[in-house]
Amino acid sequence: MSDFQTDLLAKVDEIEKIIKEYLPKEDGFQKTVIEAMNYSILSGGKRLRPMLMWETYKMLGGTGDVIKPFMAAIEMIHTYSLIHDDLPCMDNDEYRRGRKTTHVVYGEAMAVLAGDALLNFAFETATKAFGLVDEKDAVMLTRVAKAIRILGMKAGIYGMVGGQCVDVEAEKEELDISGDMLMYIHKNKTAALIEASMMIGALLAGADGTSVKNLEKCAENVGIAFQIQDDILDVIGTLEELGKPIGSDAKNNKKTYVTIFGMDRAERDVTTLSEEAISNIESVDKNNKGEFLKQLIISLIHRTR
Amino acid sequence: MSDFQTDLLAKVDEIEKIIKEYLPKEDGFQKTVIEAMNYSILSGGKRLRPMLMWETYKMLGGTGDVIKPFMAAIEMIHTYSLIHDDLPCMDNDEYRRGRKTTHVVYGEAMAVLAGDALLNFAFETATKAFGLVDEKDAVMLTRVAKAIRILGMKAGIYGMVGGQCVDVEAEKEELDISGDMLMYIHKNKTAALIEASMMIGALLAGADGTSVKNLEKCAENVGIAFQIQDDILDVIGTLEELGKPIGSDAKNNKKTYVTIFGMDRAERDVTTLSEEAISNIESVDKNNKGEFLKQLIISLIHRTR
Repeated sequence: MSDFQTDLLAKVDEIEKIIKEYLPKEDGFQKTVIEAMNYSILSGGKRLRPMLMWETYKMLGGTGDVIKPFMAAIEMIHTYSLIHDDLPCMDNDEYRRGRKTTHVVYGEAMAVLAGDALLNFAFETATKAFGLVDEKDAVMLTRVAKAIRILGMKAGIYGMVGGQCVDVEAEKEELDISGDMLMYIHKNKTAALIEASMMIGALLAGADGTSVKNLEKCAENVGIAFQIQDDILDVIGTLEELGKPIGSDAKNNKKTYVTIFGMDRAERDVTTLSEEAISNIESVDKNNKGEFLKQLIISLIHRTR
Repeated sequence: MSDFQTDLLAKVDEIEKIIKEYLPKEDGFQKTVIEAMNYSILSGGKRLRPMLMWETYKMLGGTGDVIKPFMAAIEMIHTYSLIHDDLPCMDNDEYRRGRKTTHVVYGEAMAVLAGDALLNFAFETATKAFGLVDEKDAVMLTRVAKAIRILGMKAGIYGMVGGQCVDVEAEKEELDISGDMLMYIHKNKTAALIEASMMIGALLAGADGTSVKNLEKCAENVGIAFQIQDDILDVIGTLEELGKPIGSDAKNNKKTYVTIFGMDRAERDVTTLSEEAISNIESVDKNNKGEFLKQLIISLIHRTR
């Protein structure tokens, strides 16, 4: 195992602990919805978004705990979106990461509520950051406020939900979607939460506006490249490797980057976007602390499964 | 028409304008989800929650605009909960307030997304309050932060969603629910957002902790009384008056306050809760500015339709 992979596993463990600290206790009359939330979030995801957030924060000199509620919050938002995406009226998926999806285990009504609960709890959790800064420190209060604002913007109709809306419409109506529309979907459905992660990490570390912008661009590149790679892997992947049927996009007549632009261009664009993302990092990393973050981005984009 | 009713209608109009100011524009690739959000929120609701919020704010001397994003936000949360409640996997309602429900008009997938989008947009909207206070004013920044925290707490698993979870379980499993469990449902599913409304109004007006607590209790009483009255009206109401079939709760074998405790006790408890709510108001209303708020509460609880 490479040093990078050893580091990565150790970091995933640390993040797992942080997320767990912020999960609700499974008790009270409303126990079932809390169990469904925790079942869904504790499904062994890659914790990519909190990791990008934390690494960006640390690269830019952040050291405090104020980032932690946001790390948990972004994973809660990601998780709620998966629960709702898997619903029968959406993608109707029975398995995710080799486990039964939330609605299969808890029923559809409870899956809708567990998703709602996680989205709501994400914001509840993010507001806990206010309790980690001095009530008289207007600068830090404002940073936390801006971070919550970014979280909301990137998760909602001008971010992830916007992308899901177009994705749902394209699929249900079997639209012959354009490259522009597909880029909109990838940028919003996938990249937006990654943008939020890196922007919040930068903002809470005290980065200036230009650096936050550069990292937003970096994250956009990472998100889009990640999604194009997903489209590539859907074609070449196998059931064992991905945990879902081979070529499921093609089977569903789903337009992807590969079906619209072809495999050659898809592979070329992944490389270009990846290089740009790395140079975005280098433009803000004045103290050369971004080595792990750069390796992480490369490994995410150029993953083979 | 009484003076109270004339005032009420004028206030509903004002609130309607404030809500509309905060609604998203229907454009972009994601136009459909925004249309579904706006269709749902602009359905002529009573705007009870923003009204209670605003009236509490004004009673306690609040004058600024900082309350407005929260007025819109609480109505967005209320609306999202109705959209998801109406879904086929939940209550499966095709009409609400005489109009087709969101999933009937836009399809189930889009209704799930429109609900998600409204919940998310509620928090996005609430964070706009930070832009209405001085970035250096730590006191106001902290009040806004606390208000967002209350919004999250009361809307989530320790509030509305908690109540919905138990309600869904009780219904699906035809549980022989206890009085305690029913009170939990009423307190959380209905009262929690009313609590948030009055607490946020008080907090942003600068009320002290004791006043906020008293108003939380007042709102709890209002919410529970409102819901008991709903149970009473379900029995005695008519299709024309309520816009839904007579005795729909009984038809669905749903346990209500009336079926558990009987009509006499239900009517008596509504009166007691209402009197307590009024005395809670009087305990904080040092300058006798709560006349409209008191009349509003009485009219809400003792409504006949």
